[in-house]
Order: sequence, then C-alpha cells, then structure tokens
Amino acid sequence: MIQKLIDRIVTKDAPVVVGLDPTMAHVPEWVKQEAFSQYGETLEGAAEAIWQYNKAIVDATYDLIPAVKPQIAMYEQYGIPGLIAFKKTVDYCKEHDLIVIGDVKRGDIGSTSAAYANAHLGKVRIGNNICTPFDEDFATVNPYLGTDGIKPFIDACNDNDKGIFVLVKTSNPSSGEFQDRLIDGNPLYEWVGERVNLWGKDSMDGEYSNVGAVVGATYPEMGSLLRKVMPKAYILVPGYGAQGGKASDLAPYFNADGLGAIVNSSRGIIAAYKSDRYAIFGEQNFADASRQATIDMINDINSAIKNQ
Amino acid sequence: MIQKLIDRIVTKDAPVVVGLDPTMAHVPEWVKQEAFSQYGETLEGAAEAIWQYNKAIVDATYDLIPAVKPQIAMYEQYGIPGLIAFKKTVDYCKEHDLIVIGDVKRGDIGSTSAAYANAHLGKVRIGNNICTPFDEDFATVNPYLGTDGIKPFIDACNDNDKGIFVLVKTSNPSSGEFQDRLIDGNPLYEWVGERVNLWGKDSMDGEYSNVGAVVGATYPEMGSLLRKVMPKAYILVPGYGAQGGKASDLAPYFNADGLGAIVNSSRGIIAAYKSDRYAIFGEQNFADASRQATIDMINDINSAIKNQ
Repeated sequence: MIQKLIDRIVTKDAPVVVGLDPTMAHVPEWVKQEAFSQYGETLEGAAEAIWQYNKAIVDATYDLIPAVKPQIAMYEQYGIPGLIAFKKTVDYCKEHDLIVIGDVKRGDIGSTSAAYANAHLGKVRIGNNICTPFDEDFATVNPYLGTDGIKPFIDACNDNDKGIFVLVKTSNPSSGEFQDRLIDGNPLYEWVGERVNLWGKDSMDGEYSNVGAVVGATYPEMGSLLRKVMPKAYILVPGYGAQGGKASDLAPYFNADGLGAIVNSSRGIIAAYKSDRYAIFGEQNFADASRQATIDMINDINSAIKNQ
Repeated sequence: MIQKLIDRIVTKDAPVVVGLDPTMAHVPEWVKQEAFSQYGETLEGAAEAIWQYNKAIVDATYDLIPAVKPQIAMYEQYGIPGLIAFKKTVDYCKEHDLIVIGDVKRGDIGSTSAAYANAHLGKVRIGNNICTPFDEDFATVNPYLGTDGIKPFIDACNDNDKGIFVLVKTSNPSSGEFQDRLIDGNPLYEWVGERVNLWGKDSMDGEYSNVGAVVGATYPEMGSLLRKVMPKAYILVPGYGAQGGKASDLAPYFNADGLGAIVNSSRGIIAAYKSDRYAIFGEQNFADASRQATIDMINDINSAIKNQ
C-alpha cells in the first residue's frame, strides 16, 4: 500500500494529506441549517452536516491531493450517526481515488488489536461470508502495548495490502512527558522508532515499508533524528499550520530521494474560510477557500523540500 | 462515579467485572443461526448475534455483579452494525443498574482527546440541543501522549460524574517492551503510575479518585508496587483466568480496606460453556454456565482477598 501512496504523491507532486476532522464549530452556519432542517439538532443532524461539509471539501480538493486523513474521534463524538458519516466519508474518498488514512490511534493486547485491525484494515468472517467493516487504507496505531499489540496490524497489512503509521513522537505540547524520557541514554521515542524500523522489515513494499511512523511537525530536531533511525518508514507529519509547525522545519523529515514524508493539515485546510487569509471567499464558498489553502500548502511544502 | 462503583462492589460483595467481548467464535451456533436467518451472514447478522448473546449473559449475571466491561474492538470489527450492538449493550446494562466500563483505550492530542471524552463520557452541543453519544460510565485511556491527552477525559469526569482507567501496566506478554524500560532507575509503568496518582487528585470522589489505572493480573509484583504508588487509584485488573492470572496473586492489588481493585474476566465468563468445567450446561444453556462461572469467580477472588 505504501507504494500506492508514493505513486499518488509523485503524480500529484503533493506530499500532503488533508485532515478531515470536522466539528460543529468548523461547519458553516448554512450547511448546519440545511442539515438541521432535515434531521433536527440531533446526532443525525450533526452527522449530516459534517458529511455535506466533507463532501464539498473532497469535491474541491481531490484532484490536488494523494490522500485524506479523517480523525475518527471527530465522528465518534456524534455517536452512531457520526460513525456512519465517517464510513460514508471513507467510501466517498476512495471513490475519488484518494488514499484514506484512518486516524484511529487504536492499540490493545494481541487478540483485541486483531479485532481493531480487522475493523479498519481487514475483513471478518461471518458464517460463510467475508465482510469488510471500515476498510481504510492506512490506520494510525499506538505502540504503548508493544509488539504483540502491533503484530496483528502488520498481519492485516500483509493480508490486505494496507499500511499503518505508529505513533512515535506526537505533535502535542506534553508529548515529551513520557516520549522524551531517557532510557539507557536515548529517548523513548527513539526506542519506539527503532522498533518501527524492525517491524517494518516484515512488510516492505518497494523501497519503503507499509509500517510508517507519526512524528509531529512541532519537533523538527527529533524528526531529523528519527528520519535516520527509520530510513524505510514513511513519516506522517501532523502539526503543520494551526498547531505551529512550519514548512521550513520539515525538510529533515524527507529522504534524499525527496520522498519519505507526508504532511497533514486539518483546520488550516477545512476551516480555511475562517482565517483572515482566505476570508475573501466567504462562508458560502468555504470549499473554494479549502482548495486555495491546499494549493498554497502544497507550494509551501514543495519549496521547503526543494530548498533543502 | 468511583464511589458508585464502590457502593455496588460492596453491596454485591463482588470486586469483579464481566468483560463483554463477544466474537463469532464465542457465540453458540444456535444463537448465530437465529440471527443469520433474520439478517443473513452479514455485519447486521453478526451484530444481532452478539447482541442476543450479550443480552442473555447480562440477564443471567446482572444481579451478581457491579459492572461490565464491553471491549469496543469486538464490536468495531463488525462495522456500524457492530457499534450499534455496542450502544445497545451499554444501554441495556445501564437499565440493569450495572456500571459500564467502556474498554476503548482512546487517547490523542488535547482537542482530539476532548472529542473522544465527549463521545464516551460526555455530551456534545448540536445547535441548541445537548446530545449524549455513547454514555458509558468509565472509559479506558492510553497515556502515551501525556497530560494534555488525559486532561480532557478528567474534565469530562468532573463535568459528568464519570471515571477513567489509564493504562499503566498491561496484561499482554510484550507489555514490558516499553512499559518496563528503566528511566532514572524506575520503570516507565511506575512513572505513568505516579502521573495517574497526580492526575487523580483533580477528580476525587470519596476515598478514591475517578482516575483509576489498568494493571494486568499477569504481573502481580508490579501490581504490588503500583498499589503503593497510586494509593487512591482504583485498579482495573485484566488478565485473570484465560490470560493466566490467578486469584492467589491478586491480593496485593487491594488496599487494607479490602477495596481498591476490580478484577475482569471476559472469555472465562462469557464462553464458560465451552470449557470442560462448565460443559455440563450445554450450548443451549450458555448463559447459565456464565452465571455459574461468575459465582465461582467471585468466590475465588473473595477468598484470595480474605486470605491476604
């Protein structure tokens, strides 16, 4: 699967992913009102609003980008209707030839991780039928439980041509509380990175592995180190834009081949119409604002890589 | 919320929780066939099967136990229909006056953790309405992202009278890979335990905190140490029974007041009818086997505590 992602990144010359993380606060008032008039101010109404919002943003950006990353928490907070909107979004994006990275950050003991891996990357046998639950292309995974929590995801990658991104160094302010603590002289994130490198050998796909890593844009010196620790792991980089990460900091996340990283922006793209820079588009044309923000982000990242 | 859980534990003299972790392999053939005849060998059919299975087990055990712990992965693997069965199970258990521990192991950066906290323990505002998505009583939470990933859950505990159990030392074989590594002479799980103790001060409810911890039954010497590190944290103990944890090892997880821990069994209860010990009940009476296994487990745990 990582090779499919790389092919699309190269074809579109866009090492970026749009984070489809909708909340009621982001959705334009008129989209909400249309949804509420049909379904009321209910979980169903919220789910319809975020689905229509997503659809418009995907329609306006899919030709520019290789991938999207829906954050399932934003859907889960609207209950079952929200999760139906998540599944509709996954399917709609795949119909538009986008790679879908399910940002689910699952992880548990072996047999339970296997169930999560089936849910998001695999299949389940029901009687004599094989059914496909959510069917994203990639999932993000939490490493706290160690190898036997990760192995079932790698099996699902190999069985179904899928991929994962393991949390290594996250973009949030308190990520260092545990991740930066030194173990035998090296920080925990480096030990996790080394393990990602090992795990990755079991699922190579061309020059890179289906086992990638999450490393926040907000910690570029750690990105630089982790790039060397996991040379075959694609790095999914959250934290660009709204969280404070700058394109000029991102060059070290890439390899000399110009590949090796994909940068996510969520609010900066999907709520672009709310920022001063794109306010001219107006709330009615929020998706056009997202398109322009996507073009600007691609240029910003590409010029930073080329100036490496 | 922790006080409500303690009250039920004391009233029923049962520091145990039944893990409702259904898979197709556990559900008796006749329950599956009834479900498939209605909904086919589909995600809907699987969801109906696990819902009927759960309902029978709850009906047969609810008077004996204070709480249940549905593992959401087992439902998520059956897609949207599976998650509808999860929600029906949560609601049914609450109608039967059971405390529901959503074993969801969520955790993310701050704003995303807030969405998860809303989803499982809180509420969401939609227009002028306040809606309740999943509404478990407790959720399990992953600490890898540090304080800003946990804080939104604690806020949800305080706003809605709920609780969490933070993963400290998990029951699986490779949990030591990161959790046991030494940082300044102490293992990572101890540092996480100390943080749980600190976090817990912000959500006290009687003698204990709404911020509890997960510590596997399979590592009793670590349970003993963590009991001292987090004196006010209730410990949720997975790994008893099928995973190898013995009642005789569990005394150190409890405080001198006889409180402080609640022991989970999943397969050992819900699939009791498949074990030699309870085979006499037969597949038709699987729920009666679960009831007997619950009675035996309560006696086993209680005699171990009393022999402390």
